[in-house]
Amino acid sequence: MTTPLRIAIIGHAFMGRAHAHAWRTAPAFFDLPLKPEVVLAVGREGFKAQEFADTWGIPEISTDWREAIAREDIDVIDICTPGDTHAEIAIAALQAGKHVLCEKPLANTLAEATAMARAAEEAHAASGALAMCGFSYRRTPALSYARQLVEEGFLGRLWQVRAQYLQDWLADPEAPWVWRLASELAGSGALGDIGSHIIDAAQWVSGHTIEGVSALTSTFVDARPLPDGGRGEVDVDDAAVFSSRLSGGVLGAFEATRYATGRKNALRVELSGTEGAIAFDLTDSNFVELYRVADGERAGFARIDVSQPGHPYAAWWPPGHALGYEHAFSHQAVDFVRAVAAGEQPRPSFADAAQVQAVLDAVQRSAAADGALTAPTA
Amino acid sequence: MTTPLRIAIIGHAFMGRAHAHAWRTAPAFFDLPLKPEVVLAVGREGFKAQEFADTWGIPEISTDWREAIAREDIDVIDICTPGDTHAEIAIAALQAGKHVLCEKPLANTLAEATAMARAAEEAHAASGALAMCGFSYRRTPALSYARQLVEEGFLGRLWQVRAQYLQDWLADPEAPWVWRLASELAGSGALGDIGSHIIDAAQWVSGHTIEGVSALTSTFVDARPLPDGGRGEVDVDDAAVFSSRLSGGVLGAFEATRYATGRKNALRVELSGTEGAIAFDLTDSNFVELYRVADGERAGFARIDVSQPGHPYAAWWPPGHALGYEHAFSHQAVDFVRAVAAGEQPRPSFADAAQVQAVLDAVQRSAAADGALTAPTA
Amino acid sequence: MTTPLRIAIIGHAFMGRAHAHAWRTAPAFFDLPLKPEVVLAVGREGFKAQEFADTWGIPEISTDWREAIAREDIDVIDICTPGDTHAEIAIAALQAGKHVLCEKPLANTLAEATAMARAAEEAHAASGALAMCGFSYRRTPALSYARQLVEEGFLGRLWQVRAQYLQDWLADPEAPWVWRLASELAGSGALGDIGSHIIDAAQWVSGHTIEGVSALTSTFVDARPLPDGGRGEVDVDDAAVFSSRLSGGVLGAFEATRYATGRKNALRVELSGTEGAIAFDLTDSNFVELYRVADGERAGFARIDVSQPGHPYAAWWPPGHALGYEHAFSHQAVDFVRAVAAGEQPRPSFADAAQVQAVLDAVQRSAAADGALTAPTA
Amino acid sequence: MTTPLRIAIIGHAFMGRAHAHAWRTAPAFFDLPLKPEVVLAVGREGFKAQEFADTWGIPEISTDWREAIAREDIDVIDICTPGDTHAEIAIAALQAGKHVLCEKPLANTLAEATAMARAAEEAHAASGALAMCGFSYRRTPALSYARQLVEEGFLGRLWQVRAQYLQDWLADPEAPWVWRLASELAGSGALGDIGSHIIDAAQWVSGHTIEGVSALTSTFVDARPLPDGGRGEVDVDDAAVFSSRLSGGVLGAFEATRYATGRKNALRVELSGTEGAIAFDLTDSNFVELYRVADGERAGFARIDVSQPGHPYAAWWPPGHALGYEHAFSHQAVDFVRAVAAGEQPRPSFADAAQVQAVLDAVQRSAAADGALTAPTA
Repeated sequence: MTTPLRIAIIGHAFMGRAHAHAWRTAPAFFDLPLKPEVVLAVGREGFKAQEFADTWGIPEISTDWREAIAREDIDVIDICTPGDTHAEIAIAALQAGKHVLCEKPLANTLAEATAMARAAEEAHAASGALAMCGFSYRRTPALSYARQLVEEGFLGRLWQVRAQYLQDWLADPEAPWVWRLASELAGSGALGDIGSHIIDAAQWVSGHTIEGVSALTSTFVDARPLPDGGRGEVDVDDAAVFSSRLSGGVLGAFEATRYATGRKNALRVELSGTEGAIAFDLTDSNFVELYRVADGERAGFARIDVSQPGHPYAAWWPPGHALGYEHAFSHQAVDFVRAVAAGEQPRPSFADAAQVQAVLDAVQRSAAADGALTAPTA
Repeated sequence: MTTPLRIAIIGHAFMGRAHAHAWRTAPAFFDLPLKPEVVLAVGREGFKAQEFADTWGIPEISTDWREAIAREDIDVIDICTPGDTHAEIAIAALQAGKHVLCEKPLANTLAEATAMARAAEEAHAASGALAMCGFSYRRTPALSYARQLVEEGFLGRLWQVRAQYLQDWLADPEAPWVWRLASELAGSGALGDIGSHIIDAAQWVSGHTIEGVSALTSTFVDARPLPDGGRGEVDVDDAAVFSSRLSGGVLGAFEATRYATGRKNALRVELSGTEGAIAFDLTDSNFVELYRVADGERAGFARIDVSQPGHPYAAWWPPGHALGYEHAFSHQAVDFVRAVAAGEQPRPSFADAAQVQAVLDAVQRSAAADGALTAPTA
Repeated sequence: MTTPLRIAIIGHAFMGRAHAHAWRTAPAFFDLPLKPEVVLAVGREGFKAQEFADTWGIPEISTDWREAIAREDIDVIDICTPGDTHAEIAIAALQAGKHVLCEKPLANTLAEATAMARAAEEAHAASGALAMCGFSYRRTPALSYARQLVEEGFLGRLWQVRAQYLQDWLADPEAPWVWRLASELAGSGALGDIGSHIIDAAQWVSGHTIEGVSALTSTFVDARPLPDGGRGEVDVDDAAVFSSRLSGGVLGAFEATRYATGRKNALRVELSGTEGAIAFDLTDSNFVELYRVADGERAGFARIDVSQPGHPYAAWWPPGHALGYEHAFSHQAVDFVRAVAAGEQPRPSFADAAQVQAVLDAVQRSAAADGALTAPTA
Repeated sequence: MTTPLRIAIIGHAFMGRAHAHAWRTAPAFFDLPLKPEVVLAVGREGFKAQEFADTWGIPEISTDWREAIAREDIDVIDICTPGDTHAEIAIAALQAGKHVLCEKPLANTLAEATAMARAAEEAHAASGALAMCGFSYRRTPALSYARQLVEEGFLGRLWQVRAQYLQDWLADPEAPWVWRLASELAGSGALGDIGSHIIDAAQWVSGHTIEGVSALTSTFVDARPLPDGGRGEVDVDDAAVFSSRLSGGVLGAFEATRYATGRKNALRVELSGTEGAIAFDLTDSNFVELYRVADGERAGFARIDVSQPGHPYAAWWPPGHALGYEHAFSHQAVDFVRAVAAGEQPRPSFADAAQVQAVLDAVQRSAAADGALTAPTA
């Protein structure tokens, strides 16, 4: 672990914090072939960037992400800014030969996402640069384990997927306006923010691709209080409900909402197959539930503690000691570093993430067409 | 309880049994203004009807339901036969001035259901006859209590409804063919059989009406083993997933399926409002979960044992002693008898049930139109 | 099912009702070799006995249980009176050659219970009379299934048993005085009333016998409101916590209480063995949880719906349709009738129940001796 | 946060790792009045200490804890070694005027624990040194919140406490011998290792002190495989079950075991009072369950996500984002640093921890006396 992997983090809010913690924590618990070092913190407002750098022991700051890309000693550009800036930064970084880790959703529009995926492909051919999108929930051990079981054939033939991402921070109609409610900044609402997570999780865990969606969306409250006493317009979806057809004849039921009163952060995925079923709920994130048809009269959903030897990422504490939300970011860091060291494509690639964006785009088009079945387009 | 209410049960399978048990059990636990007495059991095959009558202490049998209707001493025709026979029997009974309790779904087609609702209205005007459809889950104490809470304003303004009815008896592709898989006999598949329950429950508990649906359905396995070694065609839906718009701007997410591996009988309803949320799962049927926004940092879904004093139908055993599936039928009997004695319309009326049928019909039309938003028609 | 088994029910309160319902319901759902018929209802107050008889269609009443025993046409004396009357009635009935079903606890004192067990043995030798004690929870399908699994070796070697029976109807210090709070009438408090259930369940399911107990008990509130405005003395235990040594080196942890705020009726049993574990909670009574060590990294507690084909007493409704509290009484009736028809000893026998009483007695003696390990005595 | 608080960590196994992570992570998420800096890692084997230091960015190592105490620039001695070494190190450190954070259990014997508590008191008087014992679960937000609610009177009068700590790593009789199975090294078995946690948690959350215990313990397997093919003796308890009397007439039920098959790490505490109940399970550690009697017919155990604004330690991520096992160590670091900066006694103090040790000692004496009620002695 002597060779360093030098990283610049762009952005220092919620996601910057999660990434900084992960880069520092991952090597203390996992054997890594390269030693990640965050050497530069970038933020538009210098004093905030400095505070972030001080907190995380990052030696230098900049107020311009172009500076990070220009520096020869930096290997990785880690993009933790809002979605409307992803494309420009990521494409520039890739063209400069940097490896890129970009937060989800990959972009705010399908056009941007497609351009980013193309840039990643070209950069890889040109310079060996590698790009990954941060759908961190893939690295929640329970979901990783679910994926592994599916690959091992646990489900038999898959019939159905159901996935929900339920939050409630807008159920109060007087909750304040935030940037996530403006389509210009956020692209879409619940759909892009949390719907993207269940689209990625459902497709990745199941191994099936969404081929068509039929969606209804609602904006329940169209203006919300601003700090100045006025009201800010809401022009994104508050909730999105969509049915889908996946490859192999699988039927999907999806819901993403910020109005599920009492549900703080419930990402749920359930897969129903001929030989078994798998169910996951992020509010019980250290467990996955498994149902085996072969158990006959003794069959029932078994709640598996995924901290046992043999489970993914079981490198932290003894069995039975829970992990939290942030651990998935450390696992993401681990996998990214290992992929870079091996020169292998980390997943989800930008192409993977652009496909999720294409599904989001299809959902929006279907909703605009009152539920007409709509195929994602590349 | 001295005046009898004389009942003929038509049909003696699963539902006949549930009704016979209910008519006999209800008066032992509830004070009733009339004494229900099943005086005639009707079944096409006499020896089966006789066995049924012997089991339940029913004094007479007939192999022709017309005989039941012709008898002057019979007050109530209780229809427990498959859906394709409901309309003919119910309309004849109503026209003869009998009260009618008819199992759900009201009919196999919207046309039949509409005719039945019309017949009920006309019969009531003509003879005072009363008609009710047996959506028995309404009488599960937890759902009754949920309805009561909604009426009391527990939810504030309602934003969303999510409802699932998950079964798994077809997840095995070699499970045998049964009559429920033929549209001619069953009308539709999971949709009419169990989807009708969640449509009724979601609308009734919430007090909001479905105004449009966007649906996808799947038939995963199109032929199944027959006893003779051949295969029977499946021409009904195996699973139906539909989004919906309800009155008052409420958004709905629905799923009915017989392929949810490991889920034996999970009818779930969740309502999300500005002031609270209510969640119910039939696999935990003696409880309802309540979330109160006003509880602030102490808010969480509370699991309420609905056998306490003050809860609906709490006439059985001391608090904390669980009821089962069949108790809802006894409660249905109680409410039917009381309505008849009072000359008041029992609910769900045939009109209520025809409206559910209209939603089922809209779901089928939307599915045929690849998800296009479709309004139920009267 | 043509030969009748004629029954007299002594007592018509909560338990009389449960038994009357069971005798009537059991033959409608199960094939029985004899047809149970309740022919006599006995209660000290004639008008109450008559109301009970009317409710349940019982043709005759009496105010004296001796009359029931004297009648030659009565086969079974079903004792549903308070515990202080059990011994006298049961012994007289047995000496008269009647079969006896007696509610739990078998008696209020060990001396009485022992005498009853002896009387049952003698009567069986003399007349073939059979006696059973009504620990009805044994017939909850989940617990019956647990017993079956243990017999099949599911647990491997058993290490530990933990059992709780938690209720809360006395947690309010101003809850009214009732006869269950007087030792003269009730024998003991939470211990005999509900502790007896977990002692029986833990021993029966595990197949291990309690050989010593170390107990602490508390009476938290020593007087409670009477209807007349005065206060009635409480001289029984409100809660009993006891450790125990069972045969085969098994260690047990038990708690019975009426002060477990919020727990309405939580009878819980968990068995921990080398190869598996079994957990049951009466508040989720249609399920049992199973853990199989052999499942390795896929091991977790699986929640089994015990209404599937192959599960005990699965004669009611299709899989996934829940049973309630009262069904265990019907199962008890089924097993009693079958045993009587076969001339075989139904279980729990009076000897089994007297052994439970011996454990209760040991708990009381240990508590009186401040926890000193105390062996049950025959 | 400019003034540093210089720390030496003694020990680098499981607990050393947890502490190193906490000292580094706490200041990144919490505002601290002093900046904790681990400046020295101590371990008997130099190469292991060096590896640990490299992992955590600790500048220096030593193989002798006396060196750490001798250094003037070190403020805090953080003891993460096995229990048999705690007393010597802690007392020496305190006498040298160092602040001390010592892992639990405070010591292996009551005599040592008492001496440590005395040393802490004397050192505080002499030099202002502060000493704290690391019962880290107190800082699990859910338990902290439970304590806060109890202080606010949530429970009304407390009747009962039940607490379990269930693990299963010895349920396999062929699981290998480890040092925790030798009394000389570990003091006791499940009792000191995990029983100490529930004793501390139950007393601290409830605010009631254990005044007497009646205990049974078992050693189920008395020898286990050694790496060399031989077998190592087990002379500690495998499981301890004890009833207890707490101050104010509260009754307690406790169990600590390593043989609860399928339970990986289930620390459970439940408190039952006149006005409410609180339940916690470490396997669902981001939630606490609350029952409010005043809610009447709407009362039920509500599952509270304790990551909301207003909840303890809610400084990490947005509401609904789970914390893990290790976060309690960061919270412990936060509270320790704040107490040191303020010159106030951090809790649990050595006196608090010695009282827990006295309870452990009483449990062992009661078990040796076959359950006789035994009072802890100072």
